[in-house]
Amino acid sequence: MRFGIFYEHQLPRPWKPDSEQRLYTDALDQIELADRVGFDYVWEVEHHFLEEYSHSAAPEVFLAAASQRTTNIRLGHGIIQLPQQVNHPARVAERVATLDLVSGGRVDFGTGEASSAAELGGFGVARERKREMWQDALDCVTRMFAEEPFAGWNSPHLRMPPRNVIPKPVQKPHPPLWVACSRRETIRLAARNGIGALSFAFVHPEDAATWSRDYYRLLASEECVPAGFAVNANLAVVLPMMCHEDPEEARRRGASGAGFFAYALAHYYGPSRHEPGRGSIWADFAARRPSLGARGDDPLAGALGSPQQLVELVRRYEEAGVDQMIFVLQAGPNRHEHICESLELFGKKVLPVFADGREERERAKAERLAPAIGAALARRAPVRVMARPYQMDEDAEVARIGRRAPAAGPGERLRAARKAARRGGQGLLARFVGGREDRDLERWFGPGQQRLLFGLMARSFDPAKAGGFQGTLEFRLEPAATWTISVRGERARMAQGRAADPALVLAMPAADLLRVLAGTVNPADLLMSGKLRVEGDVTLASRVAEMFGGPSPY
Amino acid sequence: MRFGIFYEHQLPRPWKPDSEQRLYTDALDQIELADRVGFDYVWEVEHHFLEEYSHSAAPEVFLAAASQRTTNIRLGHGIIQLPQQVNHPARVAERVATLDLVSGGRVDFGTGEASSAAELGGFGVARERKREMWQDALDCVTRMFAEEPFAGWNSPHLRMPPRNVIPKPVQKPHPPLWVACSRRETIRLAARNGIGALSFAFVHPEDAATWSRDYYRLLASEECVPAGFAVNANLAVVLPMMCHEDPEEARRRGASGAGFFAYALAHYYGPSRHEPGRGSIWADFAARRPSLGARGDDPLAGALGSPQQLVELVRRYEEAGVDQMIFVLQAGPNRHEHICESLELFGKKVLPVFADGREERERAKAERLAPAIGAALARRAPVRVMARPYQMDEDAEVARIGRRAPAAGPGERLRAARKAARRGGQGLLARFVGGREDRDLERWFGPGQQRLLFGLMARSFDPAKAGGFQGTLEFRLEPAATWTISVRGERARMAQGRAADPALVLAMPAADLLRVLAGTVNPADLLMSGKLRVEGDVTLASRVAEMFGGPSPY
Repeated sequence: MRFGIFYEHQLPRPWKPDSEQRLYTDALDQIELADRVGFDYVWEVEHHFLEEYSHSAAPEVFLAAASQRTTNIRLGHGIIQLPQQVNHPARVAERVATLDLVSGGRVDFGTGEASSAAELGGFGVARERKREMWQDALDCVTRMFAEEPFAGWNSPHLRMPPRNVIPKPVQKPHPPLWVACSRRETIRLAARNGIGALSFAFVHPEDAATWSRDYYRLLASEECVPAGFAVNANLAVVLPMMCHEDPEEARRRGASGAGFFAYALAHYYGPSRHEPGRGSIWADFAARRPSLGARGDDPLAGALGSPQQLVELVRRYEEAGVDQMIFVLQAGPNRHEHICESLELFGKKVLPVFADGREERERAKAERLAPAIGAALARRAPVRVMARPYQMDEDAEVARIGRRAPAAGPGERLRAARKAARRGGQGLLARFVGGREDRDLERWFGPGQQRLLFGLMARSFDPAKAGGFQGTLEFRLEPAATWTISVRGERARMAQGRAADPALVLAMPAADLLRVLAGTVNPADLLMSGKLRVEGDVTLASRVAEMFGGPSPY
Repeated sequence: MRFGIFYEHQLPRPWKPDSEQRLYTDALDQIELADRVGFDYVWEVEHHFLEEYSHSAAPEVFLAAASQRTTNIRLGHGIIQLPQQVNHPARVAERVATLDLVSGGRVDFGTGEASSAAELGGFGVARERKREMWQDALDCVTRMFAEEPFAGWNSPHLRMPPRNVIPKPVQKPHPPLWVACSRRETIRLAARNGIGALSFAFVHPEDAATWSRDYYRLLASEECVPAGFAVNANLAVVLPMMCHEDPEEARRRGASGAGFFAYALAHYYGPSRHEPGRGSIWADFAARRPSLGARGDDPLAGALGSPQQLVELVRRYEEAGVDQMIFVLQAGPNRHEHICESLELFGKKVLPVFADGREERERAKAERLAPAIGAALARRAPVRVMARPYQMDEDAEVARIGRRAPAAGPGERLRAARKAARRGGQGLLARFVGGREDRDLERWFGPGQQRLLFGLMARSFDPAKAGGFQGTLEFRLEPAATWTISVRGERARMAQGRAADPALVLAMPAADLLRVLAGTVNPADLLMSGKLRVEGDVTLASRVAEMFGGPSPY
């Protein structure tokens, strides 16, 4: 059994000017204490716009601050919202890796879909698609960690070209993965994805046993196809907690917080209406509380009790096969001093009870699961290795990402390319030929300039664009002048005069050759207008400009 | 004068398994030291996918870690990329506010548009729209800080329903705003928006005087309509730095880093091609470095010197009206120990010189500017207060956000033209010069070819790019050959030999002139590496390639 503490950063109204700052600095102090007394994990949610219920909108910032106040405690994102409109997958990979770097490899990467109306409506996430968004993003982000370079993405939810997503996490292949299970069914999803289950469905220990059996059965079955490149087999349960030698005092200190937690959760996740910036969930709760009744033996009251009672409770969860207990102390109006006292006491009286022999039990579990995990990982589509280097191309990439699915047809691409070629041409030469008459260009393009240009073309020969062509091209320019370029091996040479056995003859006005090389005229247009005449391999003709440093017609 | 240090998290290849972690932990140690010796600011970039040049992809995480290791130093985002595809404005507001909370109100909020092909292409940001995205996001984010609840957004770049964006920053109405100015013209944009200018265009102190005058004149004029709800009137200049009692030792310690910084910058921001995950910018730099030449007295080499020299340099910037000097020490292969020694020495010998009377000077400045700032803030559209409560409605909100945004306007045409220009570099010439040695190019680039090329340049002269320039430019090529281009009216003529009274003299290797015209080398890179020497109007120099048909360096 491992132990964690959990933060929503709850802040019941009314607020004072310094309430949020106090909330944050108190939490950092608590975590520093939790680390010192031996808690294994601190978990931090990501929620947006859930005033009073959760002011933890940038957990990457908060956990990073906590990383420098602690030494051993693991820093858990519990969770990061994966829908692409909330967090771009590259930004998720980057922030998780960066946190792993500043913490020396202490990150656990919990994931989720978001499910409050405030968040889905705020970011425009369609509820019926968020599950597939989550699955898509998880595959994508884990590849960003493991692939070097990340080989790109093209799904209905994200398009991204190949990039080396940096930095990389300290933990290889990546930090342990988890998923938030606010519904208990999601525990099965976790198992099928080979990742940890963070259960927020406060269950009786005895319920947990069923779910744990299900989780480990599925995880070891052929249904498990890991979402990441490592399997994290763990089931954690989140409960409210407050600890005091006097159980009644523990309950007094913790009940309001636990009650508000549940009430505010229902406010945002149930059918209640919310008006941003107005009202007070706390005031509503306080007013209705008497009629909500005593929480008595309600399991939702959680772990409010004496150290002895908590040892007992933890044991029942341990026997049920739960791997981690995560406690919410900061909830509703719960007081900083009470939270610190609880952590101290729990550290002193409860934690040690479960430390004995833990490493061995965990090692035995790992050995037991190893064959199944090995088999599962073999089912996961592997890290992609790009066979050839990818050349970045900003405009094509931006256009591709901006395109609505389904992709624009090849006709549109060709038109766009031609348009671009006509507009911008090939810079210097394009500027020079632009708007000039044939006569003007011919006057300038005398024998010396022709020699220079064919020389440049020959030296600019690109075998990659030549499709294996070997042989001689003959250029008959008007007015009368003939040049050849001969390709042998990977090199090309130019010469004046006709060829003995040309593979291709291109006859055209000298001025138009200049325009083709400048990219301001398309060879296909010349061909159709009769200004360019071709003898020989026509397919080859379409590649000529490209082969010799001109623009691609495609 | 205030002082900052600046982090890109540079990491030249080859990388060891622990290189990134070492990079981060060293940086945290350095910042702790900088805070202790009295630096006022630490600035952290946000860059994505720029391997070797910048591994700082999640500055919100890094600065949050730094917040718990420091007490006084301000934590500057230098900058956060505001295009909505990279960071949703709500996520920006949340992370800035959270950092402000954990640091006790020490955040400065620098903003930017992103401009490398790696980032724009990676996230699908259309280059011609990024300026308007920035402006839109800045308005939106500052309202998220100040409005309670945020009253919603409906622009071509973002749709969002009303929500209370929490948490709120400690600093009211929000942390000081800045914008990155990689082009000096952006300093004017900063002034018109009433925000601080972070100038990365390494200028002479004397150049800075002009820009400072311009900045403060515009900021106090009716053209200033603040982007935020407070004005931040500050001009900061970023420079490489290394400090040692022996100036030669300072230069030895800092030159490689400064050189690599400039080289890698040019790699990602110039026309050079990048293949994700492949190659080594460091190896390229190291191989070409001998030919890049000594950096000599080049002011672009930055602040590498003794404490006395740095006091002198800072004084010149102070006299020029610069408010903050930001130093880059972590660059290229610069060593952690050297960086720490520099910070210590600078803190001991330089910082105290400028501390005397600073508060009074700053107070006097604030008083002087107060009327203009008051008038400017009155021009800013105020915080919106919703007359009636807004009722959340998930389905309607999701549908509204998902509706297709209005089509791109005239920018699309511009984009097509730029696409062509960038695609081909300068096409034929780019292919030709690509990968060739200086000697090879020089052999080819004889008197005949030089005449041809200067002729082409003169004929390609574009008055629209010349900013009204009239006069003569002299090009001194190495090996020995001198040419001039004279602009009169709307035409330019070339001639061989020296000019009687040149407005500008550009001296450079002949091979590099070819590369500039081909668009494969950035003139700024040449200038920084000392291969291009300029006499006369430096501002004019930055426009030369563009004037004569070469690519724009921006």
